[in-house]
Amino acid sequence: MKRTEHRACFGGFQDVYQHGSTTLGCTMNFGIFLPQEAQSKKLPVLYWLSGLTCTEQNFITKAGAQRYASEHGVIIVAPDTSPRGEGIPNESAYDIGVGAGFYVNATQDPWAKNYRMYDYIVHELPALIEATFPATDRRGIFGHSMGGHGALVLGLRNPERFQSISAFSPIVAPSKVPWGEKAFTAYLGNDRKAWAEYDAVELISKIKKPQHLLVDQGLGDEFFASQLRPELLKEACEKNGHPLRLNLREGYDHSYYFIATFIGDHLAHHGKILNGV
Amino acid sequence: MKRTEHRACFGGFQDVYQHGSTTLGCTMNFGIFLPQEAQSKKLPVLYWLSGLTCTEQNFITKAGAQRYASEHGVIIVAPDTSPRGEGIPNESAYDIGVGAGFYVNATQDPWAKNYRMYDYIVHELPALIEATFPATDRRGIFGHSMGGHGALVLGLRNPERFQSISAFSPIVAPSKVPWGEKAFTAYLGNDRKAWAEYDAVELISKIKKPQHLLVDQGLGDEFFASQLRPELLKEACEKNGHPLRLNLREGYDHSYYFIATFIGDHLAHHGKILNGV
Repeated sequence: MKRTEHRACFGGFQDVYQHGSTTLGCTMNFGIFLPQEAQSKKLPVLYWLSGLTCTEQNFITKAGAQRYASEHGVIIVAPDTSPRGEGIPNESAYDIGVGAGFYVNATQDPWAKNYRMYDYIVHELPALIEATFPATDRRGIFGHSMGGHGALVLGLRNPERFQSISAFSPIVAPSKVPWGEKAFTAYLGNDRKAWAEYDAVELISKIKKPQHLLVDQGLGDEFFASQLRPELLKEACEKNGHPLRLNLREGYDHSYYFIATFIGDHLAHHGKILNGV
Repeated sequence: MKRTEHRACFGGFQDVYQHGSTTLGCTMNFGIFLPQEAQSKKLPVLYWLSGLTCTEQNFITKAGAQRYASEHGVIIVAPDTSPRGEGIPNESAYDIGVGAGFYVNATQDPWAKNYRMYDYIVHELPALIEATFPATDRRGIFGHSMGGHGALVLGLRNPERFQSISAFSPIVAPSKVPWGEKAFTAYLGNDRKAWAEYDAVELISKIKKPQHLLVDQGLGDEFFASQLRPELLKEACEKNGHPLRLNLREGYDHSYYFIATFIGDHLAHHGKILNGV
């Protein structure tokens, strides 16, 4: 593992590391923010999953989360969105291939060998982080858009591994919207039963141990009605007695200006659960 | 004038506008953050000058200033760093030509016709802003690196137009460092008397009405000793009884992670002077 960036930030350090991933079969980058407090004690880790087209850079440069991570005493890890580099299958469309892993374990060729972001985020990356950095085994997960979908799915399926979950503008029902239908057909094939394991709205009805979900969604979001459809998550949570705090934010769009505005609320949500204060 | 971006952010709007500049002879972009408070009253305007290679985008996406601008009730305008586009002279080096105006009025060919960032920032842009937006005629100026130089020079030379001044990692003595010597030779010619009008350390000794200066400088800045030399500003201010608060920040570098960490202090500095609270 190699550190490629190391920058003082809000009393701690915003770093970027590069490592060889056995799960994905390629070299991966991730950002990690280590608050000052991490110099003297172990802290819980919050995993941020980014959206389509993003790398590890978008969140760490634009969200302004470091201030709040320092306040709430959590490390933030921001991985890349897909396998990447020489020999990794790709397509020219932005919504499939590199930059668009959808946080699944692909079963279809040519994706099945490398596109295993589910296992990478749930298992390989936390193991690496906890072996290397001053991290406890308390974990949270959050993300944006495709990464909001990832946070909901990975968190709901692994409550013993992720104790807190939140999302910005998530694709809550990928099986029912164009982005998800295209990606799941490519990565998982035509059998929609396989899709249900990666669909937050489908998963809500099967969850035995409800976790409190926090979701922020802009009402001026250009993908609101076509791709995101937060009303489906609301219905599923109400029907199944699953606690959801859904904040619909008038005028806000799909950009990092929206994320930056409300990221402090999300850090407070995770900090409270992960640190118990 | 045309609005090209309009995004809800911290209760207000982060917009980008495009307009034809008569001073520069080209189309220019600027970012403007209008806090929610600007919907019901006029607010003072703080001008941010960016550094080498930047456009209007760097500050508005990375500094996280909108939160503090909302708290302190100021509009922030972030212009581009130089004239730009078809017919504008350029060189392939990053430190001269497009992205490197150095906030002077050039007198040498081929730069003299378009490279008039001094007049653009001091006169044309504030006139446009105050005629178009809910802005008072109270103004502050701040910036980073080349833009920190610009903020010091434009502010010190025009105390009646800019009531508050601050800078991150400024080039305080461009006449004495490689970036400044190269740019001033190109834009202003070989006569160093002309350079002194654009050199903050030189100006300090001539200023009749001292203004309180706030400067933040990272001690881990890769350009500290070669290009920035804050000790020269400190000496000049001490010698001339000019009030300076110089914060040397251990471990911080030249990046936006440094700016984001301390931007709140700078907004407080300007807010206090411009709004009197």
